[in-house]
Amino acid sequence: MGALHAGHLSLVRKSTTIADRTVASIFINPRQFSPTEDLETYPRNEEHDLKQLAAQGCDLVYVPSRDAMYPKGYQTSIVVPELSQGLCGTSRPHFFGGVATVVCKLLNQCRPDLAVFGEKDYQQLLIIKRMVTDLDIDVKIIGSAIVREKDGLAMSSRNAYLSSQDRATAGHLNRVIAEVARTIASGARADEALCRGRAALLSTGFPSIDYIEVRSADDLTLLGPGVIDQPARVFVATVIGKTRLIDNWPIDKNQ
Amino acid sequence: MGALHAGHLSLVRKSTTIADRTVASIFINPRQFSPTEDLETYPRNEEHDLKQLAAQGCDLVYVPSRDAMYPKGYQTSIVVPELSQGLCGTSRPHFFGGVATVVCKLLNQCRPDLAVFGEKDYQQLLIIKRMVTDLDIDVKIIGSAIVREKDGLAMSSRNAYLSSQDRATAGHLNRVIAEVARTIASGARADEALCRGRAALLSTGFPSIDYIEVRSADDLTLLGPGVIDQPARVFVATVIGKTRLIDNWPIDKNQ
Repeated sequence: MGALHAGHLSLVRKSTTIADRTVASIFINPRQFSPTEDLETYPRNEEHDLKQLAAQGCDLVYVPSRDAMYPKGYQTSIVVPELSQGLCGTSRPHFFGGVATVVCKLLNQCRPDLAVFGEKDYQQLLIIKRMVTDLDIDVKIIGSAIVREKDGLAMSSRNAYLSSQDRATAGHLNRVIAEVARTIASGARADEALCRGRAALLSTGFPSIDYIEVRSADDLTLLGPGVIDQPARVFVATVIGKTRLIDNWPIDKNQ
Repeated sequence: MGALHAGHLSLVRKSTTIADRTVASIFINPRQFSPTEDLETYPRNEEHDLKQLAAQGCDLVYVPSRDAMYPKGYQTSIVVPELSQGLCGTSRPHFFGGVATVVCKLLNQCRPDLAVFGEKDYQQLLIIKRMVTDLDIDVKIIGSAIVREKDGLAMSSRNAYLSSQDRATAGHLNRVIAEVARTIASGARADEALCRGRAALLSTGFPSIDYIEVRSADDLTLLGPGVIDQPARVFVATVIGKTRLIDNWPIDKNQ
């Protein structure tokens, strides 16, 4: 969606190391915004985006208009219903349908051999993988690790919305879920670790927590309340000021 | 879906005249049947189907299992909401979602240059065209004229369900809508022609009429009640015995 940061650029670099040619798209997709969300104010910086993509070795940038993507009479949508429930699907019920549909279109327009998506939007990544498998789209979907600021805040175009005070608070989000993940990995009950994490976030200055949960890394099944013995991640979402922040952290017993 | 008749075979012949290679699929798609419909009793005659396809010059027949099409964890579906409203979408609300999804899968599995669908299922044909355009699937969808029995009954695998008395009644369906289409083409009001058509069907022995309507041939917009001055068709659906019959007829001012 443009307003590129180091997270996006890491996807381009990953692609250039494994593919002969790399294509990026910049498209602020209206179908993944609700009427109350920030479609019109979403950060835009196309000229700078194009320079950064060129510097990373991106071979082509595709910047379609809204009318080119959704001409008059457009009506088709794709839903991946089970993976779209819970987590961000609860507060953003139409978001993942909009994402799945536009990604299907972009894949069909470009016909890439592989496509790289960030693990920051982990639910989105699994939905895209599921859609590609279910609809027999001939592409390999590759997840890429979250890129973080110095204090560990996951990079996001929406971080630009944060006031300096909220930005300072936001830096604690990743540390709290990393600690929850470490505690669970060391054998603690998930429910107790999550309660401590929730309390830590509230005391650090987050006004409210949308969710903090442990889910299967493979299919997002809600895990707990006891000890976790399968590949899993801690998922969190908060709203600070008017900015929604999300993050996730693997529960890794070998760490 | 197999149980092939001359209508299906006409699609194969059409393909062999315009394409280098012709592939047919036989798959009774569970996702386009409701729990109360005839999935388990739908007519099957695979051996005979394969012989007929070979005789028409079909190069390959694809007969996937249900598990190959919808393995464990499958969940994605495609909806084309506006075109799926009205006509058969009213009594079969999940039908067209099941059709659009399986056709998308088959197109992605086969990657044909063109695909031929019959005009008997005219709403389905427009939904598939719309999906292919909307999702940027690289295939040309070609409609093919309805093939009829000697008395004009549109060929359908479900005609095999009809008792001999119901089969005799069924032969009047096409004649009534052809007469409605001719009357409208000659300048009569649509509402009056449809009322006469409805009365003619009831008096001929059809116990009930699901719908008899005039709609745009391009986007299925409901037309009338007055004179029709754009490309249009008469659409009809009835249930006789336990068998649902559908048909449609172009309103052609040059006829």
